[in-house]
Amino acid sequence: MNDAFFDLAGSQRACRWFTADDVSDADVERMLGVATHAPSAENLQPWMFVVVRDAEVRRQVDDLARRHWDGGGRAYAEARLTPSMLHDADAAIVAGHGGAPVLVIVAGDGRDLPRRVLASSVFPAVQNLLLAAAALGYGSALTTIAAVDRAALGAVIALPDGVEPMALVPIGRPARPLGPPRREPVATKAHSDRFGTPFAP
Amino acid sequence: MNDAFFDLAGSQRACRWFTADDVSDADVERMLGVATHAPSAENLQPWMFVVVRDAEVRRQVDDLARRHWDGGGRAYAEARLTPSMLHDADAAIVAGHGGAPVLVIVAGDGRDLPRRVLASSVFPAVQNLLLAAAALGYGSALTTIAAVDRAALGAVIALPDGVEPMALVPIGRPARPLGPPRREPVATKAHSDRFGTPFAP
Repeated sequence: MNDAFFDLAGSQRACRWFTADDVSDADVERMLGVATHAPSAENLQPWMFVVVRDAEVRRQVDDLARRHWDGGGRAYAEARLTPSMLHDADAAIVAGHGGAPVLVIVAGDGRDLPRRVLASSVFPAVQNLLLAAAALGYGSALTTIAAVDRAALGAVIALPDGVEPMALVPIGRPARPLGPPRREPVATKAHSDRFGTPFAP
Repeated sequence: MNDAFFDLAGSQRACRWFTADDVSDADVERMLGVATHAPSAENLQPWMFVVVRDAEVRRQVDDLARRHWDGGGRAYAEARLTPSMLHDADAAIVAGHGGAPVLVIVAGDGRDLPRRVLASSVFPAVQNLLLAAAALGYGSALTTIAAVDRAALGAVIALPDGVEPMALVPIGRPARPLGPPRREPVATKAHSDRFGTPFAP
């Protein structure tokens, strides 16, 4: 079991381009099943998932991403991303979340939870969702751009007040092979006892 | 590979009590290796890990959790947790993060990243850390209480300004068997296209 998990999580890549091949509801349900086994503060399980397949809802959500991108996101990204990352992000957003057949919007119910612990109680579930997609052979990505305008997204998918959209996860079959992950070594990120003392096993 | 991941993530439980058995640096490094393969905005990898083993640093960090608990956390929890959850939380905090031999503090470097995407760029790594611990046979938990007083925790572990402590993860061998997870069914958490329309495969 160990090696399988390390192989799976160690090769996770964001997928930006999807084929039109469908993702079955049974597979979506299996992914959500494992997402709901993530930890949360007080075990309150504040995650909520909206599985978007309807073409009109999807168009409106994709439009929100394009609007934010055109309204400043692209300009911001131009100064920060590598040319290839910028190209991929631009094309995927213009195409509408990379043409993925399913888009799962993950929201956090902040109505009965201190705001301080909402993110720590939702993003572990998002990570489980991404890993589950990979375990089933799908590509996925963690995006947030369409959630920037909370009011607009909330109106499209009828989110109640106090329920905050936190991630949008396109899921589908990768249209291109995913390359190897590019990551800084642990040694550059890990410290012993106090920041600045290298963790050096 | 599929089933192994679903079994692992589907049985994740918070571990509150640990034996004194050590966790090797090699195992910690392996866990951090997979933590650093989580997704992050712009692939900026803003996670930072402080692996606390030093007794004096640990005492100070444990004290921060106790101080917050005694200063209002317990009273807050009394009204919200079940008696058994409250008892477990109380005893674990009083004992100092459940007596775990290793405490990994996960911080997010917000110095070059919009604050809007810091949590979404750190908690997936935390979840990988928790899953990796389980894959190696260790117990762990996602805690945040000792991070409430950012200034105090930052002083103990010398965090630079702009680097925010976000989670404290005790890791060790479980002192008791972990029971089955208690989770609401997917059907209560999943919607189709718009909030309020059940997702019913």
